[in-house]
Amino acid sequence: MRSSHITIKDIARILGVSPSTVSRALKDHPDISEDTKKLVKTFAEKVNYRPNALALSLRNRKTNMIGLIIPEIVHHFFSSVISGIEDMAYAEGYHIMICQSNENYQREVMNVQALTDLRVDGLIVSVSKTTKDFDHIEKVSKDGIPVVLFDRVVEQLDLDKVVIDDFDGARIATEHLIKSGCKNILHLSAPIHLLIGKNRFEGYEAALKNNNLEVDNDLVLKCDTREDVISLQSHILSLAPKIDGIFAVNDSTAIAVMQILQKNGFKVPEDIQVVGFGDGPNATITSPTLTTVEQKGYEMGRESVKILLHRLANPNANIDFQNKIITPILKERESTK
Amino acid sequence: MRSSHITIKDIARILGVSPSTVSRALKDHPDISEDTKKLVKTFAEKVNYRPNALALSLRNRKTNMIGLIIPEIVHHFFSSVISGIEDMAYAEGYHIMICQSNENYQREVMNVQALTDLRVDGLIVSVSKTTKDFDHIEKVSKDGIPVVLFDRVVEQLDLDKVVIDDFDGARIATEHLIKSGCKNILHLSAPIHLLIGKNRFEGYEAALKNNNLEVDNDLVLKCDTREDVISLQSHILSLAPKIDGIFAVNDSTAIAVMQILQKNGFKVPEDIQVVGFGDGPNATITSPTLTTVEQKGYEMGRESVKILLHRLANPNANIDFQNKIITPILKERESTK
Repeated sequence: MRSSHITIKDIARILGVSPSTVSRALKDHPDISEDTKKLVKTFAEKVNYRPNALALSLRNRKTNMIGLIIPEIVHHFFSSVISGIEDMAYAEGYHIMICQSNENYQREVMNVQALTDLRVDGLIVSVSKTTKDFDHIEKVSKDGIPVVLFDRVVEQLDLDKVVIDDFDGARIATEHLIKSGCKNILHLSAPIHLLIGKNRFEGYEAALKNNNLEVDNDLVLKCDTREDVISLQSHILSLAPKIDGIFAVNDSTAIAVMQILQKNGFKVPEDIQVVGFGDGPNATITSPTLTTVEQKGYEMGRESVKILLHRLANPNANIDFQNKIITPILKERESTK
Repeated sequence: MRSSHITIKDIARILGVSPSTVSRALKDHPDISEDTKKLVKTFAEKVNYRPNALALSLRNRKTNMIGLIIPEIVHHFFSSVISGIEDMAYAEGYHIMICQSNENYQREVMNVQALTDLRVDGLIVSVSKTTKDFDHIEKVSKDGIPVVLFDRVVEQLDLDKVVIDDFDGARIATEHLIKSGCKNILHLSAPIHLLIGKNRFEGYEAALKNNNLEVDNDLVLKCDTREDVISLQSHILSLAPKIDGIFAVNDSTAIAVMQILQKNGFKVPEDIQVVGFGDGPNATITSPTLTTVEQKGYEMGRESVKILLHRLANPNANIDFQNKIITPILKERESTK
């Protein structure tokens, strides 16, 4: 937008000097007088001229604005993250601008562009499910604007990251079922090629192994939405007599499976105990209420801002990138014994 | 922020002319040469110089960015509005910047300030519950930036508005209970001093009167949150044997009252039928599923953008302010017969 339209030629034309003078002045070339340097630099700053090389030197010109890009505002988890981010940021005098990628790579690229055009001091991002190329994020960081990734992080990017320990959340959920007497535990899983699917499956697997229970592949179903549960209904009901526990990869799947079991004469938790993952508001309105893993969105939001502000307060320090892992906790309710 | 820091004096100093030359050039004064005018104007635009008097003339310099201020992102209704706004805006080449006031007047004022500093082409706002003074919104509109209010609108402001017909939503909800055989209908109401509380109560009242049923003040309870229902539990249970229907001012209250009735031996809908207002995702996961009034957030979002874009496309037209009223519809589910 605006700022990206201004070129060295524009500056040269307006100030009445040659483009090479502008270019050399910006680079502190010794052939250029101090007065000219000052004029060109002041002017370049005023017109928001910002090539990569200049980004760092302009970093001291703070907007006190942090850009936030999230995949889907409608999710309770992301709403909690936003609250955590805003409460911490406002308390420190920062303003938050939110953009929604809507799980769309193109929109995410546009969001990054718009927010950097606005000269945000830093970015907090959870990448969309459809993003496979991360140049747009890497470029921001290389231009000297700190980026913190949360929840949906990207392994290959050298950036600050805040994540929840999905493996451990799944492990404690499954251990809880085992301690409550379950021996045949169905896992409703997200696709294993997604990090979240992989980590939660491995947590489930580890809990079984730790307790000398066998991992039965027939008891691992790719099923991570309410719609999936409905379409797999008859298969799930055919497994129901053989199982005594279900660990679902998220709350909506847990709630859907609980309802299908109940409609077909199975009692929760008497016949089959159910644990979800997320702890959204729905977990407390179902009957029975749902035992689930709390995802700690608010805390993730606060941690993300904390890391970003520390970096902004020490722009020239060589701080190692952090990988903050937040440990989830189990919320025990009525769907388990 | 940035743009507001640049004064006529700055421009004069950088261009090497007097402040009065700058001022007169911006006003197209005949004493100033065309070349100087062009230089000053181009420059003023580049540095985002924008006193009120200039606002209109700079309106053609579009950022293709729309600012959105909402009270609480966590509400399903507002998430739906955001989706409606974004789908329409992106399709038309506009980008949406979202700020959350968190029901806080001070933050709302800061949001307005930040978004106008970013030179958004227009604003879409739902005011916070704590906002009693509307100067910050009025000023934006007077500066030539169109503002559309939705849902929480302000009667005294002359602006485009998009609202749902709360009166009619409540009326059709109550009529539905009456047609399903209810004669003694409890209304769980929002405070009557809030427009939403007043309109929904009046819709309930109108439905009773239209059907020659008496309005019994003992059957109107101020009770609009899950917590209210829990604290009024024993009072509601003491009324339960006398009633056959409940119209709740929102879904969470409807769901909470349904659960309390069920835990105490009343059957829904057999003994008491229940209707909510909102149609959030919870309405489909309760058992029985909840009959409720759909609030049409997505449609409100689309309408808000449509009105705004029409105004942006016709900046000099004298378009009357619109007051778009969206008619809600009833979603019949299992909590009524």
